[in-house]
Amino acid sequence: VIRVIGITPEIRAARLVALDWGTTSLRAWLLGGDGRILESRRHARGLLSTAAAGPERAREHRMAFDEACGDWLRANTALPAIACGMVGSAQGWQEVGYLTVPTDLVIDAADLIAVRHDLGALHLVPGLRMAPHGTASGDLMRGEETQLIGVLDVLPDADGPLTLVLPGTHTKWVRVDNRRVTSFTTVMSGEVFALVLQHGILALTVAEGKRDDAAFARGLAAGAGDARGLPAELFGARALVLEGLLDPASVPDYVSGLIIGDEVRHQLPRHANPDRIILCGTTDLCRRYASALGQHGVQTHIVSEDATARGLWAIAVHSGLIEPDAATTSAETPDERRAIS
Amino acid sequence: VIRVIGITPEIRAARLVALDWGTTSLRAWLLGGDGRILESRRHARGLLSTAAAGPERAREHRMAFDEACGDWLRANTALPAIACGMVGSAQGWQEVGYLTVPTDLVIDAADLIAVRHDLGALHLVPGLRMAPHGTASGDLMRGEETQLIGVLDVLPDADGPLTLVLPGTHTKWVRVDNRRVTSFTTVMSGEVFALVLQHGILALTVAEGKRDDAAFARGLAAGAGDARGLPAELFGARALVLEGLLDPASVPDYVSGLIIGDEVRHQLPRHANPDRIILCGTTDLCRRYASALGQHGVQTHIVSEDATARGLWAIAVHSGLIEPDAATTSAETPDERRAIS
Repeated sequence: VIRVIGITPEIRAARLVALDWGTTSLRAWLLGGDGRILESRRHARGLLSTAAAGPERAREHRMAFDEACGDWLRANTALPAIACGMVGSAQGWQEVGYLTVPTDLVIDAADLIAVRHDLGALHLVPGLRMAPHGTASGDLMRGEETQLIGVLDVLPDADGPLTLVLPGTHTKWVRVDNRRVTSFTTVMSGEVFALVLQHGILALTVAEGKRDDAAFARGLAAGAGDARGLPAELFGARALVLEGLLDPASVPDYVSGLIIGDEVRHQLPRHANPDRIILCGTTDLCRRYASALGQHGVQTHIVSEDATARGLWAIAVHSGLIEPDAATTSAETPDERRAIS
Repeated sequence: VIRVIGITPEIRAARLVALDWGTTSLRAWLLGGDGRILESRRHARGLLSTAAAGPERAREHRMAFDEACGDWLRANTALPAIACGMVGSAQGWQEVGYLTVPTDLVIDAADLIAVRHDLGALHLVPGLRMAPHGTASGDLMRGEETQLIGVLDVLPDADGPLTLVLPGTHTKWVRVDNRRVTSFTTVMSGEVFALVLQHGILALTVAEGKRDDAAFARGLAAGAGDARGLPAELFGARALVLEGLLDPASVPDYVSGLIIGDEVRHQLPRHANPDRIILCGTTDLCRRYASALGQHGVQTHIVSEDATARGLWAIAVHSGLIEPDAATTSAETPDERRAIS
């Protein structure tokens, strides 16, 4: 399916196509001057939905890319395109490397890798890595480095030491000092949540339901007293349902409380500045982390998840993909006539 | 498919059909006098493989039952049949209740529930429950109560306080005192292992491979030093593979070490007699737990997983389903002629 759109006011004002292409979803933004968001889309075409290997995989990536933003690029073929996230991993469309922490968050033209496609080139942003040392396994991120750039860009007071938490499928706890990333830890909390509810024994006891804040609070409290560990507490959710003490429709909120509570109890003592934590992610997830952190007396400041779009804009400007203040419209280009013909 | 078998020496000697019908698999034993195992089978027809609800579910249970032992019962329709495990849960074939701990492990005829089927009746064994109290979620077991009966039956010194660990999809840590179960905890460790390797991001980095004891030991050690928590250590496995420091074929053993190490660190301090722990399960799993416990200076004694067959025999005898010493053969019954006609 190829969508072709006419020259809308958004396309006229557009300066950059920006993608956050992760494990479970793909977000696409059409950005105008100064990086303002003209249009945004979300697709469930994350990396886990594409084929495992081979030429099939590249074909599926091209298709997903076209679905996400092909119409924008056809309407204005002069638009540059940039993407961060797992699309640049070994299992992605094309591999791009990592910057090693400690590092500042400056991404140059030489750090980007261009994937050629029918509509031009997609520029891939490198990730960040922590080198393994001793028995520590090291760590990796792809996409969140861009989100961090965006967060630091909008934060009123981004100098000095900070802890940033980016909740998601693979939540990141990041320490930043004077705009340099000094270390980070990935917690597979969102993935564990999805796996146990979709594919495990809890899938037999869960029901579609409404949001239940009280069940979330019970989950947070359940793991706090006695250190049975998360895989024991997860089974407890099933026991509560079978005892008639937890509504099957409230199981997701209860399990969310268990998992986020466990994560915060482990990560918080490992961070130097726990008085104030910056959260960036979906409104719902940030609310949950703010609640869990609040129980430990930690104040949080929430930044909109559109920080990634801002980060992609900043990288595109810094690397010279676009010029920040040039006032361009594409109304008279031949590309445009081709796109709407 | 209906299998019909002739009168083998095993069928002549058979006294009981005994099933351990759990979440992920179904084991069937043909037991002779004194409960000795004449034949044993394993099917991948656990509860998770059957339909979610409705009449379809009962039909699938009948089919799985017939596949597992229909030929034995046709060859000798006088054979009684007994089953423990999730088959007696609300999502099973028919629901049977629980004994509440603290309790001795004596299961009477009145505790069994009979499911009628084409070939007679299948007697279902009740589970054990720990009542919820305060913020503790309570706990449940089905199948392991029978395994416990079998373990205590074969153990040379079963009086006094004991800790038994039954590794599996849902590992049980059980405290027994003078043959009474005083408390237990379920840890969803086997399930988490299967979920992250089959359905999560690690499924992208894992390869078929050989057993790697060194990778298991690395996994045990990885979580010991810095309390990052299991969902963080799990992501570390991916980082190690991408850094070229862990063979994709060794990921299952490494993850097994992470999960079992985390479980032992949480559960061991919660048990009063950690000097000696009884393990009962598959040889491979018991070996892994023995290794993890050995690192904490705990000696283990391993009992064969066929303890469940012994437990089913003991329940059948105690409840009067069979008489322990009657010497019966069924060679001349009309049932037998019908079965082989």
